[in-house]
Amino acid sequence: MSHPRSPLAPDRIIELPPLAGVRLATGLTGMRYKGRDDLALIELAPGTTIAGVLTRSLSCSPPVEWCKAKLKAGKARAIVVNAGNANAFTGRHGRDVVSTTATATAKLLDCKPGEVFIASTGVIGVPLPVETITRILPDLKRQLAASGWPRASQAIMTTDTFPKVATRRTAIAGAPVTISGMCKGSGMIMPDMATMLAFVFTDAKLPAGVLDSILRPAADRSFNAITVDGDTSTSDTLLLCATGQARHVAVRSAADANLKLFRAALEDLLVDLATQVVRDGEGAQKFVTIDVTGAQSAKAARRIGLSIGNSPLVKTALAAGDANWGRVVMAVGKAGEKADRDKLVIKMGGIVIARDGAQVDGYDEAPVARHLSGREVSIEVDVGVGKGSARVWTCDLTHGYIDINASYRS
Amino acid sequence: MSHPRSPLAPDRIIELPPLAGVRLATGLTGMRYKGRDDLALIELAPGTTIAGVLTRSLSCSPPVEWCKAKLKAGKARAIVVNAGNANAFTGRHGRDVVSTTATATAKLLDCKPGEVFIASTGVIGVPLPVETITRILPDLKRQLAASGWPRASQAIMTTDTFPKVATRRTAIAGAPVTISGMCKGSGMIMPDMATMLAFVFTDAKLPAGVLDSILRPAADRSFNAITVDGDTSTSDTLLLCATGQARHVAVRSAADANLKLFRAALEDLLVDLATQVVRDGEGAQKFVTIDVTGAQSAKAARRIGLSIGNSPLVKTALAAGDANWGRVVMAVGKAGEKADRDKLVIKMGGIVIARDGAQVDGYDEAPVARHLSGREVSIEVDVGVGKGSARVWTCDLTHGYIDINASYRS
Repeated sequence: MSHPRSPLAPDRIIELPPLAGVRLATGLTGMRYKGRDDLALIELAPGTTIAGVLTRSLSCSPPVEWCKAKLKAGKARAIVVNAGNANAFTGRHGRDVVSTTATATAKLLDCKPGEVFIASTGVIGVPLPVETITRILPDLKRQLAASGWPRASQAIMTTDTFPKVATRRTAIAGAPVTISGMCKGSGMIMPDMATMLAFVFTDAKLPAGVLDSILRPAADRSFNAITVDGDTSTSDTLLLCATGQARHVAVRSAADANLKLFRAALEDLLVDLATQVVRDGEGAQKFVTIDVTGAQSAKAARRIGLSIGNSPLVKTALAAGDANWGRVVMAVGKAGEKADRDKLVIKMGGIVIARDGAQVDGYDEAPVARHLSGREVSIEVDVGVGKGSARVWTCDLTHGYIDINASYRS
Repeated sequence: MSHPRSPLAPDRIIELPPLAGVRLATGLTGMRYKGRDDLALIELAPGTTIAGVLTRSLSCSPPVEWCKAKLKAGKARAIVVNAGNANAFTGRHGRDVVSTTATATAKLLDCKPGEVFIASTGVIGVPLPVETITRILPDLKRQLAASGWPRASQAIMTTDTFPKVATRRTAIAGAPVTISGMCKGSGMIMPDMATMLAFVFTDAKLPAGVLDSILRPAADRSFNAITVDGDTSTSDTLLLCATGQARHVAVRSAADANLKLFRAALEDLLVDLATQVVRDGEGAQKFVTIDVTGAQSAKAARRIGLSIGNSPLVKTALAAGDANWGRVVMAVGKAGEKADRDKLVIKMGGIVIARDGAQVDGYDEAPVARHLSGREVSIEVDVGVGKGSARVWTCDLTHGYIDINASYRS
């Protein structure tokens, strides 16, 4: 179950500082893993607002259904996350697990079950023994601490090889505000509205509707722009909680000019977390940034970028450091978005390889091959039909992916 | 460049018998391969009609563009096929290569250039030296023979590990008619309208419009229902030629009841060829048949089937013989087609694993694991919303795929 740490992992995992209104604790349920915590309880101060973006998978899990329903009220007092069992495709039993967990947590924290959010990832289709969770929840309550971030970010991991955290200090109308988050995910990554699991917290005081309006476009440009294997999870969950502990002028609308820095900081943090997921992509040896320009719209550009980033042939060529740009042409062609083959420009590592529908005169592959031999690869494509652009991140496809996924359950 | 023969290859490659009106020859251009023929010339009797289905990729190659244009007239006297260079994304030069080849062939065979069809597969983006083809065409003309099938079916191969041929004897209104075909393809296989290259011939006498009407639905249920890696080629080409040498009552409409047996034989032959492509899927160790029922339409069922058949997580689980049916649930969910999660039925090897949105009571994995340890795997999914059904074929995703594609150009 444990794989060597990704070569693309950050040199140093930062330690998240306390954030006013958030306390965390972890424990070991024993439902799947041994010798490591697999359950996290995150307690949120009274008055915390919440927004979320969840998988659009039609096979979405009971925890996802629960979160979708409870987000409407926009209030949160706790998040319970378990790793190792996705509680997905588990029928009525799975729904009971969620409501039992929420009710038990609400009783402990003296709140309503609808203020408890649940997230589960791991194997699909196996009934989750809920008593393994409810039995240890009182223990977790006793341990709750503002310093619990490192343990929580590790407890939510499944095939991840490093914990993924990020923090930003920003301001609203001059008053300091912090945003901190953690996420997990390594395979089954091509989020359709959100990644597997990401939890982001701020001490800002923002109504749930404002949070939601800020979160969606930022999610599109971060978690919705990454892919490891083109497989969309049943459990993708991105939650953003605002504890309201910071002291700043009141904000009532997402259009408020005072949110400009906050918006930018949030998107920056989401991109940081999302790209950490790619850097921990199953078997990843190279981190790939794909910039698409000249498309009919930003959405079209993203689809073209994902078509390149999902192509097994592009990804295996990158694994080999092979400048096989013809496969990029193929992936542009199959994306189903408008592109002018005879105006296509392709660059790798900033070097123009093809222009106007053909390889450039006197093309020298050597510098491109040198670029591709590194850990960080850049591909730029202009499709020559409009002004839409998008950036997408992916990793290469290696033997490691097969090793991990041909043995995931064992 | 050469890989061990697929373990899923047929025990014996049949030898195609002569077909009235078709002669074949092969030669070595030296443009890429050494020590094996890489060019095939297929001569068709005067009066031959033709229909075709070609890639919808927006990056389609000059040979594909040429075929699309020339199919409108519906007449064919020759097909020229080279392997090793796809002549795709080669700009004006690539278009000149096609017209030069067609003109040279037409001169040799005393026909019009528009009656010469061209197909090329191999590496994308590298200029094809046309003189390597035109120089040896006169040699090929001299060698043309009705017995040339085996050599031609081998000359068109790229990463294929065995030649793919099929033949059927059928009848039109009691008169015997033969259909024979060959195809190639092993990677970059998720045809969008057709597979990489498939050439099918019959001695029936059918107008081009009738051929076209018969070909399209049969292509949808054969080549458009297979996937190896979800990557759509720039060069997919399926051509059906009728030499008109058989003696049967005249057929003027695709609705003619006399075509019933012919239609069935054609679809059967196309499925035979298409599944041989899957059996030669790059790195394939298992042949997988996916039946989807209960969908909103046949098209929806096919999309769900392809979503399962393209999922790297499903395919790596199958490679490991792991009955990880949760990944099938995931793939159904991401397909974007209507499905009722709480009515989903999943079977493997005919054994019911899940029903009504959850694992069946007393589920025993042992017989499923036994089924998955074999070479031929069956997955059945009922999505519980309608009457649409489709069958899709794929293979597993193994280390072999990475080996082949991380070294294709070298």
